[in-house]
Amino acid sequence: MNCFSYPFAGWGTNEQLIIDILAHRNAAQRNSIRKAYHEAYGEDLLNCQLFEIFLETVCGYLLATKEEKRGNAEFLILRILLEKELTRDFERIVLLFTMDPAERDAYLAKEATKNSSGHFVLVEIACARSSNALLDVKKAYHACYKKSFEEDVAHHTSGDYRKLLVPLVSTFRYEGEESDMSLAKSEAKILHEKISDKKYSDEELIRILTTRSKAQLNATLSRYNNSFGSPINKDLKADPSDQFLKLLRSAIKCLTTSEKYFEKVLRQALGKSGTDEWAVTRVAATRTEVDMVRIKEAYQSRNTVPLEKAIAGDTSGDYEKMLLALIGAGDV
Amino acid sequence: MNCFSYPFAGWGTNEQLIIDILAHRNAAQRNSIRKAYHEAYGEDLLNCQLFEIFLETVCGYLLATKEEKRGNAEFLILRILLEKELTRDFERIVLLFTMDPAERDAYLAKEATKNSSGHFVLVEIACARSSNALLDVKKAYHACYKKSFEEDVAHHTSGDYRKLLVPLVSTFRYEGEESDMSLAKSEAKILHEKISDKKYSDEELIRILTTRSKAQLNATLSRYNNSFGSPINKDLKADPSDQFLKLLRSAIKCLTTSEKYFEKVLRQALGKSGTDEWAVTRVAATRTEVDMVRIKEAYQSRNTVPLEKAIAGDTSGDYEKMLLALIGAGDV
Repeated sequence: MNCFSYPFAGWGTNEQLIIDILAHRNAAQRNSIRKAYHEAYGEDLLNCQLFEIFLETVCGYLLATKEEKRGNAEFLILRILLEKELTRDFERIVLLFTMDPAERDAYLAKEATKNSSGHFVLVEIACARSSNALLDVKKAYHACYKKSFEEDVAHHTSGDYRKLLVPLVSTFRYEGEESDMSLAKSEAKILHEKISDKKYSDEELIRILTTRSKAQLNATLSRYNNSFGSPINKDLKADPSDQFLKLLRSAIKCLTTSEKYFEKVLRQALGKSGTDEWAVTRVAATRTEVDMVRIKEAYQSRNTVPLEKAIAGDTSGDYEKMLLALIGAGDV
Repeated sequence: MNCFSYPFAGWGTNEQLIIDILAHRNAAQRNSIRKAYHEAYGEDLLNCQLFEIFLETVCGYLLATKEEKRGNAEFLILRILLEKELTRDFERIVLLFTMDPAERDAYLAKEATKNSSGHFVLVEIACARSSNALLDVKKAYHACYKKSFEEDVAHHTSGDYRKLLVPLVSTFRYEGEESDMSLAKSEAKILHEKISDKKYSDEELIRILTTRSKAQLNATLSRYNNSFGSPINKDLKADPSDQFLKLLRSAIKCLTTSEKYFEKVLRQALGKSGTDEWAVTRVAATRTEVDMVRIKEAYQSRNTVPLEKAIAGDTSGDYEKMLLALIGAGDV
């Protein structure tokens, strides 16, 4: 049984309704929608094609609710199905946002292992999530793809990228606030030596970045700045076109000041050389309930225009509306 | 408040009672003893010294039970405390066994990071536990030591050992039964090439051993044997005195046939050159509820004497009794 077998009539599309339903529901509420789907249809949404997921989710959810709402559910679903006026960007953001955070990251991670442009997404998932959130991604990855996140990353990377990315996605960092000042001193020195010698993929440098807690790294990097006169990320800009150095800087930013990292992703995605909707969608769908308020502040202070205005200027239609709803949702 | 403040009289020791209480309780039951302790004293057992843990555990447990049993509890605890006739080996096995499995492994892991003879213990914990059990060890490690397991291993190892051990303890392996035959073929070939070239710490070899699921590794190693005429561990014996090769073989055995690995640990520990009680204790305390029945079978078929007999011949007193109770517990 599925909702597509219901009779229908040709209604006009109403993406605003989708936006209204989803953009203002939190992860737990969205998850209960998915649960209702599973109870109604006995299969997991992630086994479906991406857009079908969303349609059936809403369908299943509404069908599983009270009798009198059914007509409304069929109304909503079938007219979307029939008219297919949705754009690809709108589909993607709605569906990514509908997914459970761990499954969404597992989905983005799987996409990212397939090509080298995905390295930054792997770094985001490894460094800008909590240890337990990263762990949930790994569990979701097992369940969805019958493989481990680590083995796919290891299998699809090589050289310096493998040396950095595999330990980065594998580690289960300690999350306490403690930091050891003598360790900060000795490891700041190691980092500075390796960077001065341009040994950017040295195993000691990678050990420190991939295993130490965020609190310890903050102490070490602040010591680095104080002892050697410039922030580590400035020293890691020796060759601005070096993609590995760019990845290292991204990892450090995600670990220490994630809102600045995401501000830059948005700034470049909304820049003059054509909008990168893929990146804007990813940031909006993954950060809305995390640090979107701080990202917006960082954006405004760096670019002098509010993020909402930049988005409104570069996107349009339902995709724009959904983005604005998600960006705004952080304020609620 | 703690139990040591109770009045006492000098009774004779009765370790048999401890053995009777503990050796026949499963992990959940032992955990409830620890929980009772926490409720009674408001602090975690792991903050105490090792032996105090046990004494206070039993004390706290019994004190937290019915009034009429209190006299008995004090009787038991205080006479042990006073007489101190317990041997160090007996203390250690009782205490290791009393701990929750994840905390016990975290404790053993912390010990093991401190010197290179602990490398085999790290391999056991990384390879002879399920993915979720290893994860629980990492969580316990965070809670007990305010650091991550990965960072301590990375910090205390170097060279080839670091290259192998860090990814081994970091990985969260997929545990499904699926195996990919074409992957088994291609990765068996890679393993054979690297081993033929004596590149034992090659990153491809380490990637395969540290990231693939146990089911996939079994398929790959069986393909290795069929295609190249000898088991991988035979080819990894080129230099029998090479400690890194020995560690590689141990990892492979723990991942594929853990009972054979532990049979060998026991065989060597109970061998003629003086008993290694530390190793016997570790195997007894960690495997009793896991695969002790299979280890005993493997021991008997390899050594023609039952494991119980070998233990009785090499140990004595309460330590022997506790070992025999634990070894036997697997049969219940």
